[in-house]
Amino acid sequence: MRDFLPREKAAREHALGVIRQSFAAHGFDEIETPVMEDSALLHSGLGGDNEKLAFAVLKRGLGPADAAAAAASGDLLALADLGLRFDLTVPLARFYATHRAELPAVFRAIQIAPVWRAERPQKGRYRQFVQCDIDIIGEAGPLAEIELITATAAALDALGLAGCSVRINDRRILTTLLGHWGVPPERNERALITIDKLDKIGVDGVVAELAGLGLATEGIADTLRAIGSAGWDLTEADGAPAPAWLDAAAYADLRALRAALPGVEIVFDPTLVRGMGYYTGTIFEIAHPDLGYSLGGGGRYDGMIGRFLGTDVPACGFSIGFERIVDLLGADEASAANAVVLVHEKDADPARLVALKSALVEGGLRVRLERRTKNLKALLDRAGEAGYSRFAFVTAETVDASSLDFKSLA
Amino acid sequence: MRDFLPREKAAREHALGVIRQSFAAHGFDEIETPVMEDSALLHSGLGGDNEKLAFAVLKRGLGPADAAAAAASGDLLALADLGLRFDLTVPLARFYATHRAELPAVFRAIQIAPVWRAERPQKGRYRQFVQCDIDIIGEAGPLAEIELITATAAALDALGLAGCSVRINDRRILTTLLGHWGVPPERNERALITIDKLDKIGVDGVVAELAGLGLATEGIADTLRAIGSAGWDLTEADGAPAPAWLDAAAYADLRALRAALPGVEIVFDPTLVRGMGYYTGTIFEIAHPDLGYSLGGGGRYDGMIGRFLGTDVPACGFSIGFERIVDLLGADEASAANAVVLVHEKDADPARLVALKSALVEGGLRVRLERRTKNLKALLDRAGEAGYSRFAFVTAETVDASSLDFKSLA
Repeated sequence: MRDFLPREKAAREHALGVIRQSFAAHGFDEIETPVMEDSALLHSGLGGDNEKLAFAVLKRGLGPADAAAAAASGDLLALADLGLRFDLTVPLARFYATHRAELPAVFRAIQIAPVWRAERPQKGRYRQFVQCDIDIIGEAGPLAEIELITATAAALDALGLAGCSVRINDRRILTTLLGHWGVPPERNERALITIDKLDKIGVDGVVAELAGLGLATEGIADTLRAIGSAGWDLTEADGAPAPAWLDAAAYADLRALRAALPGVEIVFDPTLVRGMGYYTGTIFEIAHPDLGYSLGGGGRYDGMIGRFLGTDVPACGFSIGFERIVDLLGADEASAANAVVLVHEKDADPARLVALKSALVEGGLRVRLERRTKNLKALLDRAGEAGYSRFAFVTAETVDASSLDFKSLA
Repeated sequence: MRDFLPREKAAREHALGVIRQSFAAHGFDEIETPVMEDSALLHSGLGGDNEKLAFAVLKRGLGPADAAAAAASGDLLALADLGLRFDLTVPLARFYATHRAELPAVFRAIQIAPVWRAERPQKGRYRQFVQCDIDIIGEAGPLAEIELITATAAALDALGLAGCSVRINDRRILTTLLGHWGVPPERNERALITIDKLDKIGVDGVVAELAGLGLATEGIADTLRAIGSAGWDLTEADGAPAPAWLDAAAYADLRALRAALPGVEIVFDPTLVRGMGYYTGTIFEIAHPDLGYSLGGGGRYDGMIGRFLGTDVPACGFSIGFERIVDLLGADEASAANAVVLVHEKDADPARLVALKSALVEGGLRVRLERRTKNLKALLDRAGEAGYSRFAFVTAETVDASSLDFKSLA
């Protein structure tokens, strides 16, 4: 967990504002849920492995008898009734089930908020981090995927992140591929965990791990190598022969999606898995040419919301990894053009200083007062670093704001 | 803890943006700290009664032996190593002590963030709520108070909240008043808790409660009635006789402060207490003519930051009660002028719809797609309520964005 100093905070707020504005322009509506949810919800199986990483909040008013009961049962989570959310998808499902009657038939949600995971600290992983999610609930057709990818690409463009592409796959393609290899359906989840490591352990590593699971691995290496060497641009001519392992219906859907997104670079990756078990159809990830990790991702999860409502509701979502994006942008985004510093003597009249400041603020400037120190250059350098662009001295001769003589801090 | 639906969330973000922008214009810099702090910090005595309301976060990886130890010692908080912050002042003190070398000599901080208190639910009190704090650290003189009150008044103005005034007092005036009544200094804290209830229990109630504490109450009722009936506008002529109970130095400071803030309505209230024990000088509260409760407040707390650094650092802060303000503003602030709805048939081509939408978004509009339903009027009414101002039908004849025929939703 990190503190953010003024320059970092300004860069973060700037980026959040750009993302928020992009998503809103594309017809998404922002909502907010409390950071704490009921323990029962956070441990209902919807969150996959992340459930184990939830911070648990102690019940209020517990006594020694409660601790003794927890000691006896070995279940220390019984002492907690609330926890910090580990993602924004589980709270969204709960929100939608609670407020469905007040929401449009097709609900396009924005959630921009922190989540918490009790992970061991490591580079690029934080215990508190911001996620920017958009989700479309109630749209079963490809319109959902097209709107989500379009809005995400627009947000990345607006942030000035050029060259991003969207890697795409469909869970049905993975299922058909595993069936083609003869993997029994009850081992699918486990086999997908292995395939998900392809980037790290390579074809031979995947084959060895699948063999270790007792699966027949004949032909798997060949298929994986063929997949890796093929250029999957989803523009094959109609009727061109597709490989036997490739799910025809899902492949046709991906080709239609690709055709519907002419302005976005789409890369089909038949081995893209994405971790969460709740995905049912399309899955996607944002790739950046300079980075070995994804900048976000998402997919269709038609079964999940239904578990709360007892009725099927289609859903599809996209999550931007905000921390990775803001690291990429750096801390130089805050605009300084209208920010000025008024340097004053130690004994200047505070009332006069603040009146001057207020007059400049009303004129549209951002104004910081600085008491003059012996090392004036250091003071001015620091103001420049803090994003101020001009300064003026307030002296005994300063009558009003118009008599200030501004100089550049550069 | 509450969910916020799109309309409420839009109103909240709008108000937060206005406040953030006002404070920044007045030279304050926003920072952010993690929502969880170490339990030791949250229970160090700096947070007063709020410490008891901190949500505690269970240590990770606990076993039955830990629960048994907690049962034996009766200290269940030993099971927690972190907690959710109950205010933004204690985290600010920790932040300043950590990052002092990277901050300007006079540091003007903005913190706009949620805090949590495990209170029993009641009207107007929430377990998660947003505070908007500004603090000036490192400024011992009245410039801090003048800048804080000016920035706060500007933020309230920008929100369109007319008619607010600032009630003001100084802890030294309360101390001198209690001394005048013969209250022994070690009973001061207790006596202030009683005086703080003056609005609720009246002069007779206060006198009875002070008598119940074993204090001599002669003259107290008369002084309280005299205070209540006097008009304290802080503009008395120099040399005018001040009452014997009124601390002369503090009173002179308040009069100077009043003179330095000609644009703000200042009301001196010698019985204003404010709850927190850490205040050392000026204290203030925002009053609104229509409301029986304050919209925020703050004061000087010169001793607190020093407890972290081992060296005295002057500090003064102002906190806006965001939830009360947003309740007052209502949910009608979001601008709708540029928001349009495209109504399409069920079988419309998704790619074409999204291309149309993107073209309008690039032209500066906010665009929502709506599939036509049998009850078109209900659909349009709901879009109007959601803040959209115009709509158009996408038909087979729609060639591009320029061929759309927009009509008003009003």
